[in-house]
Amino acid sequence: MTASAQIGVTGLAVMGRNLARNFARNGCTVALHNRTEARTRELVAEFGDEGAFVPTTSAREFVAALRRPRCLMVMVKAGGPTDAVIEEFAELVEPGDVIVDGGNAHFEDTRRREAALRERGIHFVGTGISGGEEGALLGPSIMPGGSAESYQALGPLLERIAARAPDGTPCTAHMGPDGAGHFVKMVHNGIEYADMQLIAEAYDLLRKVAGLAPAEIADVFRSWNEGRLDSYLIEITAQVLTHTDADTGRPFVDVVADRAEQKGTGRWTVQTALDLGVPVPGIAQAVFARSQSGHTALREAAASLPGPHQDAGAARPAVSARLPEAEKARFAEQIEQSLYASKVISYAQGWDMLRAGSAEYGWDIELSSVAAVWRAGCIIRAALLDRIRAAFAERPGLPTLLADPEFGGELGRAQEAWRDTVATAARHGVPTPGMSGALAYYDGLRADRLPAALTQAQRDYFGAHTYQRTDREGTYHTRWGGDRRETRTD
Amino acid sequence: MTASAQIGVTGLAVMGRNLARNFARNGCTVALHNRTEARTRELVAEFGDEGAFVPTTSAREFVAALRRPRCLMVMVKAGGPTDAVIEEFAELVEPGDVIVDGGNAHFEDTRRREAALRERGIHFVGTGISGGEEGALLGPSIMPGGSAESYQALGPLLERIAARAPDGTPCTAHMGPDGAGHFVKMVHNGIEYADMQLIAEAYDLLRKVAGLAPAEIADVFRSWNEGRLDSYLIEITAQVLTHTDADTGRPFVDVVADRAEQKGTGRWTVQTALDLGVPVPGIAQAVFARSQSGHTALREAAASLPGPHQDAGAARPAVSARLPEAEKARFAEQIEQSLYASKVISYAQGWDMLRAGSAEYGWDIELSSVAAVWRAGCIIRAALLDRIRAAFAERPGLPTLLADPEFGGELGRAQEAWRDTVATAARHGVPTPGMSGALAYYDGLRADRLPAALTQAQRDYFGAHTYQRTDREGTYHTRWGGDRRETRTD
Repeated sequence: MTASAQIGVTGLAVMGRNLARNFARNGCTVALHNRTEARTRELVAEFGDEGAFVPTTSAREFVAALRRPRCLMVMVKAGGPTDAVIEEFAELVEPGDVIVDGGNAHFEDTRRREAALRERGIHFVGTGISGGEEGALLGPSIMPGGSAESYQALGPLLERIAARAPDGTPCTAHMGPDGAGHFVKMVHNGIEYADMQLIAEAYDLLRKVAGLAPAEIADVFRSWNEGRLDSYLIEITAQVLTHTDADTGRPFVDVVADRAEQKGTGRWTVQTALDLGVPVPGIAQAVFARSQSGHTALREAAASLPGPHQDAGAARPAVSARLPEAEKARFAEQIEQSLYASKVISYAQGWDMLRAGSAEYGWDIELSSVAAVWRAGCIIRAALLDRIRAAFAERPGLPTLLADPEFGGELGRAQEAWRDTVATAARHGVPTPGMSGALAYYDGLRADRLPAALTQAQRDYFGAHTYQRTDREGTYHTRWGGDRRETRTD
Repeated sequence: MTASAQIGVTGLAVMGRNLARNFARNGCTVALHNRTEARTRELVAEFGDEGAFVPTTSAREFVAALRRPRCLMVMVKAGGPTDAVIEEFAELVEPGDVIVDGGNAHFEDTRRREAALRERGIHFVGTGISGGEEGALLGPSIMPGGSAESYQALGPLLERIAARAPDGTPCTAHMGPDGAGHFVKMVHNGIEYADMQLIAEAYDLLRKVAGLAPAEIADVFRSWNEGRLDSYLIEITAQVLTHTDADTGRPFVDVVADRAEQKGTGRWTVQTALDLGVPVPGIAQAVFARSQSGHTALREAAASLPGPHQDAGAARPAVSARLPEAEKARFAEQIEQSLYASKVISYAQGWDMLRAGSAEYGWDIELSSVAAVWRAGCIIRAALLDRIRAAFAERPGLPTLLADPEFGGELGRAQEAWRDTVATAARHGVPTPGMSGALAYYDGLRADRLPAALTQAQRDYFGAHTYQRTDREGTYHTRWGGDRRETRTD
């Protein structure tokens, strides 16, 4: 076997297969390997004419097919099997070679694996890949971590297959050392959860408060997609809401069970944010809303709790008369403001987390680069991301996205509508944990004075946890159980 | 040395010292040990006349002083040193003896330690102890885990020193095997975070919307403490708000820096809830509000963001004229309804978590017993807890506290006020993440139909994650990129 391939892909389930095809279609010679040979044969039989494939039947043969430094991509299900597969190939490659994990590994696992392989002189690159099956084939957003040196070999290959941003640049870049790539991908997914929750709330309000039918709401989303909300998720929302169930003739969204599932990266994001001390209520509320939707027993037990009721199950809900036609457009405009403002808040929280993770692990993540890489190919791709890129490119030390004058100004203009929406949702009994949580975050951040002073005083009262003062330096405790004199404790 | 002591306490910092005194004051002979002897000597010198102490100067002597089966309590700072101290004593005791960890260990660490010691025939009991320094001395709430057998030796001793509920029963009980005790204590602390956040929001609204001064708000809290909100935290809120800073003559709450700190158990609670798939937004919002308050750089950068502004820094805020006197009482009543309803929601979430943890780890935690143990001695002690105890005693299989007719009825009656409060807070720019999140949880749980259907449909669109239908069994996928036909995938 001649070492002719520039890249190898092992694990040829749908993601691996599509990535391999993408490399081949972009002029790379691609070595193929799969635990069961049938998949490799199928790929070549079906898509062999798309480019230069080198099918192999063993791990040894696969490694031998690669030019040095070898770049081989492991595309297996995250978790248990990953370590075994990595170890198998680590024993076959040589120092200087690059093993890439393209699965959704936890960044802490990636850090551990990278450190272990680095000791053996092997570059281990955990990379986030977003865009699903279609993205893998046509151009994903790719977020590699690992050593800067590994990117010299791997980067040019990834740049060939990545999605292109509107300005033509490939949506991939070196995010930072060791687990930085998987960390960035995790935050991407967390933001995706928040985005989807906010869209769900916007839909729910248009449905239950304004009484719009799904097809009408699809039109609203289509019009939003022409403006500043222009994004893949808004686009597919319109697609889903336009779709009619063939069996029943009802709007598709009404025949789908209202239980949203999750695969864990949203949960990881929140757990990591808690470790980092970064408030990400937008992501947390989205994760909780999904788990709440799946708690059938609780929901049944609570179904008869009193409150305003809206019936969104009917093709056109009973409340459709609630708003006159002329008011509906105005309401849709109000919801756009609320959705946009809440979305900006989620993104601000996501970038806070990138900044904190980068500092904690010494990754030196370029904040504008993350936005650049997310502009195309990934699930949260959106016009907004180019503006976020520009904001951080201009001021890399921006302490929060909300301090950018342009975003801050938009939130200022959105807020009357946003406050109205939260109030309206509360009065109508429509749950908007995402939008109301975003508003609370905004009001909390800009507050002159938070009631956290009372909280800290209580902590000093029952646990002698001390407090600081507004008027002078130092740490203090008041003898609450005694004479209530203040003592300095530092 | 005669083996005369019924219980031993090692680690005589303030918690250990007060527990040892509590045992002695209640007729136990208590062996004492501390890494540095001085503390042991000090305790005997200062409090030796309170009961029967057996001071010892080495670990070996300490163990020898204990009657069999030996019960020895380790009161060291949770984390690093705990394993070393436990191992030191594990080598000195004999099978059948009981080592108790009374620190705030993570329940997973307790599970690991219990399993390791069980193999050596030693009972390891992780126990939650709540009530702070004063509680440790005068009667804490005690939540032991570990084997049922260990409770036979340990339980009667703990029952002597525990707080007494209003009906006279001691506030301690065997929570369940291995880590159950520390798990229950963790959930206690999570609920405590939520409680404190809701109290802070109630204070903030009374201050910034109704324009009440701290002393007036203290009166409001005192009156609430006579009703269904009767609790330690409400009581100390009134105490704190009554207090005047001696230096400046200003209300104490106004001189305390508005940054609330945390020690980690709230964070653990949320992280564990995420692993268990239990939505606990009330606790999460409280943890996030604390971390937000401490992000000084972000807060400064966001301080000029537009929105309604209230100045709560002045002794009597500028907005005091906003509500006429007659309206203030009505507003306070509205806030009581909102605080109470939100509090019940937090407790419902806490009990959901107890149920889920118990199922996950096979602990068989008695839900009414947890409420019974929290009725006195601990930070969240409250009249409400006896009603929660009764609800779960009557219906141990209650799927959520909200399904209890009495609590459900109260929420029903509170909800107009509650919805008004959330709306008012949004309009006035006062952050109420806890109250608005609680309302969203309530409305989400009782909803006939959630927009999670749209979320799940989107997941099927971009990731082929499939969905279920409302009208028939099975798992389905729609070929979104193709002919949009539905296929059954299970």
